[in-house]
Amino acid sequence: MKDTLMKMLEERKEEMIQIRRYLHKNPELSFQEEKTAQYIADFYKGKDVEVQRNVGNGYAIVVTIKGKKLGKSIGLRADFDALPIVEETNLPFKSKNEGVMHACGHDGHTAYLLVLADCLIQLKSEITGTIKIIHQHAEEVPPGGAKSVVESGVLDDLDAIFGIHLFPIKPAGYIGYRSGFAMAGRTFFKLKIQGTGGHGSSPHLANDSIVAGSYFVTAIQTVISRRLSPFDVGVITIGSFDGKGTFNVIKDSVELEGDVRYMTVETQQLIDQEVHRIVKGIEAEFGVSCELIYTADYPPLYNDPKITADVRATLESMVDPDIKGIFEGPMLSGSEDFAYYLEKIPGCFFYIGCSPKGVENAYFNHHPKFDIDEDALIVAAKSVAQVVCDYYGIE
Amino acid sequence: MKDTLMKMLEERKEEMIQIRRYLHKNPELSFQEEKTAQYIADFYKGKDVEVQRNVGNGYAIVVTIKGKKLGKSIGLRADFDALPIVEETNLPFKSKNEGVMHACGHDGHTAYLLVLADCLIQLKSEITGTIKIIHQHAEEVPPGGAKSVVESGVLDDLDAIFGIHLFPIKPAGYIGYRSGFAMAGRTFFKLKIQGTGGHGSSPHLANDSIVAGSYFVTAIQTVISRRLSPFDVGVITIGSFDGKGTFNVIKDSVELEGDVRYMTVETQQLIDQEVHRIVKGIEAEFGVSCELIYTADYPPLYNDPKITADVRATLESMVDPDIKGIFEGPMLSGSEDFAYYLEKIPGCFFYIGCSPKGVENAYFNHHPKFDIDEDALIVAAKSVAQVVCDYYGIE
Amino acid sequence: MKDTLMKMLEERKEEMIQIRRYLHKNPELSFQEEKTAQYIADFYKGKDVEVQRNVGNGYAIVVTIKGKKLGKSIGLRADFDALPIVEETNLPFKSKNEGVMHACGHDGHTAYLLVLADCLIQLKSEITGTIKIIHQHAEEVPPGGAKSVVESGVLDDLDAIFGIHLFPIKPAGYIGYRSGFAMAGRTFFKLKIQGTGGHGSSPHLANDSIVAGSYFVTAIQTVISRRLSPFDVGVITIGSFDGKGTFNVIKDSVELEGDVRYMTVETQQLIDQEVHRIVKGIEAEFGVSCELIYTADYPPLYNDPKITADVRATLESMVDPDIKGIFEGPMLSGSEDFAYYLEKIPGCFFYIGCSPKGVENAYFNHHPKFDIDEDALIVAAKSVAQVVCDYYGIE
Amino acid sequence: MKDTLMKMLEERKEEMIQIRRYLHKNPELSFQEEKTAQYIADFYKGKDVEVQRNVGNGYAIVVTIKGKKLGKSIGLRADFDALPIVEETNLPFKSKNEGVMHACGHDGHTAYLLVLADCLIQLKSEITGTIKIIHQHAEEVPPGGAKSVVESGVLDDLDAIFGIHLFPIKPAGYIGYRSGFAMAGRTFFKLKIQGTGGHGSSPHLANDSIVAGSYFVTAIQTVISRRLSPFDVGVITIGSFDGKGTFNVIKDSVELEGDVRYMTVETQQLIDQEVHRIVKGIEAEFGVSCELIYTADYPPLYNDPKITADVRATLESMVDPDIKGIFEGPMLSGSEDFAYYLEKIPGCFFYIGCSPKGVENAYFNHHPKFDIDEDALIVAAKSVAQVVCDYYGIE
Repeated sequence: MKDTLMKMLEERKEEMIQIRRYLHKNPELSFQEEKTAQYIADFYKGKDVEVQRNVGNGYAIVVTIKGKKLGKSIGLRADFDALPIVEETNLPFKSKNEGVMHACGHDGHTAYLLVLADCLIQLKSEITGTIKIIHQHAEEVPPGGAKSVVESGVLDDLDAIFGIHLFPIKPAGYIGYRSGFAMAGRTFFKLKIQGTGGHGSSPHLANDSIVAGSYFVTAIQTVISRRLSPFDVGVITIGSFDGKGTFNVIKDSVELEGDVRYMTVETQQLIDQEVHRIVKGIEAEFGVSCELIYTADYPPLYNDPKITADVRATLESMVDPDIKGIFEGPMLSGSEDFAYYLEKIPGCFFYIGCSPKGVENAYFNHHPKFDIDEDALIVAAKSVAQVVCDYYGIE
Repeated sequence: MKDTLMKMLEERKEEMIQIRRYLHKNPELSFQEEKTAQYIADFYKGKDVEVQRNVGNGYAIVVTIKGKKLGKSIGLRADFDALPIVEETNLPFKSKNEGVMHACGHDGHTAYLLVLADCLIQLKSEITGTIKIIHQHAEEVPPGGAKSVVESGVLDDLDAIFGIHLFPIKPAGYIGYRSGFAMAGRTFFKLKIQGTGGHGSSPHLANDSIVAGSYFVTAIQTVISRRLSPFDVGVITIGSFDGKGTFNVIKDSVELEGDVRYMTVETQQLIDQEVHRIVKGIEAEFGVSCELIYTADYPPLYNDPKITADVRATLESMVDPDIKGIFEGPMLSGSEDFAYYLEKIPGCFFYIGCSPKGVENAYFNHHPKFDIDEDALIVAAKSVAQVVCDYYGIE
Repeated sequence: MKDTLMKMLEERKEEMIQIRRYLHKNPELSFQEEKTAQYIADFYKGKDVEVQRNVGNGYAIVVTIKGKKLGKSIGLRADFDALPIVEETNLPFKSKNEGVMHACGHDGHTAYLLVLADCLIQLKSEITGTIKIIHQHAEEVPPGGAKSVVESGVLDDLDAIFGIHLFPIKPAGYIGYRSGFAMAGRTFFKLKIQGTGGHGSSPHLANDSIVAGSYFVTAIQTVISRRLSPFDVGVITIGSFDGKGTFNVIKDSVELEGDVRYMTVETQQLIDQEVHRIVKGIEAEFGVSCELIYTADYPPLYNDPKITADVRATLESMVDPDIKGIFEGPMLSGSEDFAYYLEKIPGCFFYIGCSPKGVENAYFNHHPKFDIDEDALIVAAKSVAQVVCDYYGIE
Repeated sequence: MKDTLMKMLEERKEEMIQIRRYLHKNPELSFQEEKTAQYIADFYKGKDVEVQRNVGNGYAIVVTIKGKKLGKSIGLRADFDALPIVEETNLPFKSKNEGVMHACGHDGHTAYLLVLADCLIQLKSEITGTIKIIHQHAEEVPPGGAKSVVESGVLDDLDAIFGIHLFPIKPAGYIGYRSGFAMAGRTFFKLKIQGTGGHGSSPHLANDSIVAGSYFVTAIQTVISRRLSPFDVGVITIGSFDGKGTFNVIKDSVELEGDVRYMTVETQQLIDQEVHRIVKGIEAEFGVSCELIYTADYPPLYNDPKITADVRATLESMVDPDIKGIFEGPMLSGSEDFAYYLEKIPGCFFYIGCSPKGVENAYFNHHPKFDIDEDALIVAAKSVAQVVCDYYGIE
């Protein structure tokens, strides 16, 4: 069957590209992917599968492909939401929704998986088990869709789960694996520092929240520089310091927003504790009162070492002109809600190289000029197909 | 003549109050005081004086009252602009222009001076010299009106100049003088710090302008704490730290705005030099580029010691039930564009107590609930009348 | 009697100089002035006065001169301790005690007062009251001698007290007065910050006290820059940051020492409270533990306004070729334990100009090259004599 | 031959322990290891090898064991210097040189290598190549001995080099390998900040070096927190802030000493550049002048991946009751001058577990109570013997 499957995929390579282009042209923001979900549902219309819609907290669609015999269950997931970015490419299929853009490759994820799913449906009689195709909404905006899909229980029976991401870190044809912690966990925080306003000429009658906020920013640096092991990974970015006011009026309050990244739960807990400590310190030091909202969103993404070793081995064994190389991918400081699946279900999330042909330093995901080499779609399809076949021992 | 004048003022006390209430109800922002200026011009219509309109860079009106004989020339000034504040009083004559308010007492300044000017016009045959009544626009917004009135040349012939300000630091009836530097000079600055934006998870690929800005705020504290003599007066307030952004995006640039106060030109120069030094330091330290606009606006207000001593003496000599006490007023960290007149013309700017009856801690100028005891108007009128009479040796 | 007294002083001008030179050559450190005290005691031997030795916590000597009739009691005080400074002058009477130097003029204070006291003893039959001559030890080292002399009760009966200080802010002949707060109060503090030591390569296993200490120093700047009224006077100097260690070992604790100055008790209390607040903040922020010793030593020196006005008037009335001018002296940020007398007894401490002839920027007190114009001694003697005579109404 | 060699080692296990104890009792500081070197030289006396003494900048000894035939050349290195630490163990063979202690295990390194070398000498007819035994002085104190031994040229002909280190991260019997960068590079810096001294009460007349130094410490945190990739390893510790002074005197200069760690040359260069940048910034910002000595000492230690893979494989293949396990060792933030050999010669430096029996958290190297399980010596000897045999293909 494996050869048949690979051949089917090859024949539908152009279809994947057309689907991807259609989606690229019609992007929708996270939690608002109504039309995209309809498009996906339409794709499965008339096919012999169970289609569950509106799974979890959004438009997620779970398609269950039952093989002829009982056996293990696995999940394959692709996300389908887009970003609030004004596209700056000159593609003929450029976004027609100004300010919304598939700048993270989810169009490609969905495209390859639709076609792969269709092929698997056609071949399902040869599968000894169940495959769940998860078309997931809202990966880009915490709390994301994955968590709610997991909590819905629809995946409770899975034995393993797989996903891929298009990253322009290598050309099309290259596939990156990484065992263990591979992508960062993330926490969002908002800190309101309340001082007392007053006239710029009389600081003693006020309590300057901009001053307190600035000392907070300098102090928070020490969490990364002095509290973390040099061998651990952590970032704290204050992305917003909202202290706009009038030059001669002492600002009564400021609002800071921050982003925290980490590769392990231990680091997550350490930074959590230290940020809270420093906030308490700033309160005591400057006599201000602080309100801190500190919300972990996506956890660190952990690829099961055993499954990842298997994925690596099976990919390395492929003899296929589309597959040019397997490499150990880097840890990435970006976050992914696929991590929620991996908290519950062992699995592997791997990287599909996609940098445009001939481009050395390709624009990275989330850039207004982000683009992919569409040859990567067949690579995604074939590599996931290979992993599936290998998992079920299909020759 | 002095007794006559005082009696005339007393008789028109109610008129002053009515004028003040009219102005209070019809406030106009700095540089937009078209109707106020018309109201003032109308007041002088038909009177035997020269009225110059649109003096300097706005709606200023200079009224020249020529005495019968040649002699010294003096100026009396009142400002007439209002503030962009939403009035929060319950006065029956509350501002009818929502968001604009006479919260600094300029309505009272103009009211007393109109009546006093009218009285002086009637008595001008007894004055040996020339009195210029300066109704000045735009005191509240740098560059203010005063500088341009001075530069217009219309006051080149003045030998002395006087002005008053209503301050609720004492009840009505009390008059405060201060020799030498009495009100602070002020500088406005805007600092743009340009770093490089980037993703929150990759600080090394960006250059965080919020971090640079925060270290700037902490460093700038040392100008006041370590560079200034403990016996000198200086303030640096960063009133605006505009670094609003997205929590997970490193902000490429921030814009800070600051307010600097000082009581002497030496301190002004010292702080100027130190702020520039620190900006250069931040550039070097963090590899950002800085754009600094640093604009001195109103200079420190300097009351001529000789004239102030005379003012004090003549006020202390008054025997009048309206005048309850003369006191040495405090240095004030607020600024006043009357300082521009005093740079060119020796004179005195003194304080008229106006805190509402029975109120202990009255709302200060610029507060949305600022209010005055209207008895202060006759105090202003009589005290300036006394100063004028004394200056000309009029008994 | 006043003329007689002035003439007697003039005749003993050279003696004052010789005494001053003897003391200059034989300086002794605070609380160790055994020989100096003996020298002073010897001076009074055989004179008709009561001499109390070892008053308070050191070698202070109080000499009571009783007039023939009962009347008011006043104190005249001179201090006699020297400083731990290696003298760098080339004077023929340079210190013979290497490392100890009369670099603050106390030699001159003692010299003039011995001679003046002797004259007053001779004229005591003409004084209607009691004069206590206070030769005080240990002015330079807190807690100083003054506090203990006051506490000894020996001055309980005084109605007024006077003292002078030689300052090279004007040439000899000029005398400076200042009403109200004239010299700064001072607080000493020692802050031990205890973190946890460790290897330089493993910050997460330690808690770096140098980092906590440095953030403390930056935070403390805000007390002066943001908590103090711009019109109040305050200084916080961290004079010692004892964090010497090994480059690759994280320092477990650092010890900081600081000096706080203020001109009023309100400012003293404000800074006290804010320093304690920031120390608490640093503890919370960095998880270190802090030990703060915070000891006010000399209070702000407050010259009684009524007595100071009298002193000013009587000095201004002097017609004497030695007295060249009376001026309003500056507030000084230095401290003086004479302030303790003035807390209990109204009085006046005034400044005697002493800058060496022809020298523009004389070395200030405490400099290894500090020197005085010895003509200042007769000025000190005469001016205090004048104040005494005037106090008792002696013509 | 391999079996013979292993048996010889086993028989001399007790001798290794005795040598180690002798050395432990007689420690000598880096660059002063005269007697230790003599002891080592004496050991080789009469043996059929070439012994070079005083190699490089100290007492290093290189012993050349020539096999019977030409072939590859390898080096085996052990260091022999001790640390300036007061030993706090109760060992019967505790240091008899108070204040000097073998607290880093170099006694054990030397002990095992002497015995192994002797065995190899006896078996040299079976070796097809040359083995150089490097007894190295002064590992603990930069510039260390290794660099000069390399520069002496005596190792120019080596094809590979091996070394081990005793670390109590595992019990005796466990051996840790790590491919690529394994131990940190290190830079030492000394920063003198020169301001201007002055009296604590007059900050404006001075320029406070403690303030500048403290702001430097806070700014330097951003190098690690914002300039480094979150996936790179770097540490900057300010181990010394020498600003001891007098509480009321503004300190004219402070001296800071720091320690920088990094795992790659890129990180080394980045931190170098950033520290220099911040120093320039502090100069500009505070008007101080800075003198920065910034000296890289040991580079990051880089184990050749190919050779390390071979070492791992050959160790994993051992069937020997003394060898209990092979593990991937952690990156260590400590530094080692063995890194200099590895800059020139491919090789592998691996870790020998040595934590005392039954002790959970053993005192780490450099602790005054550091101790080893002496069973680790035979493990070191056998594992290096295995590597050597395997290298030459000796069965």
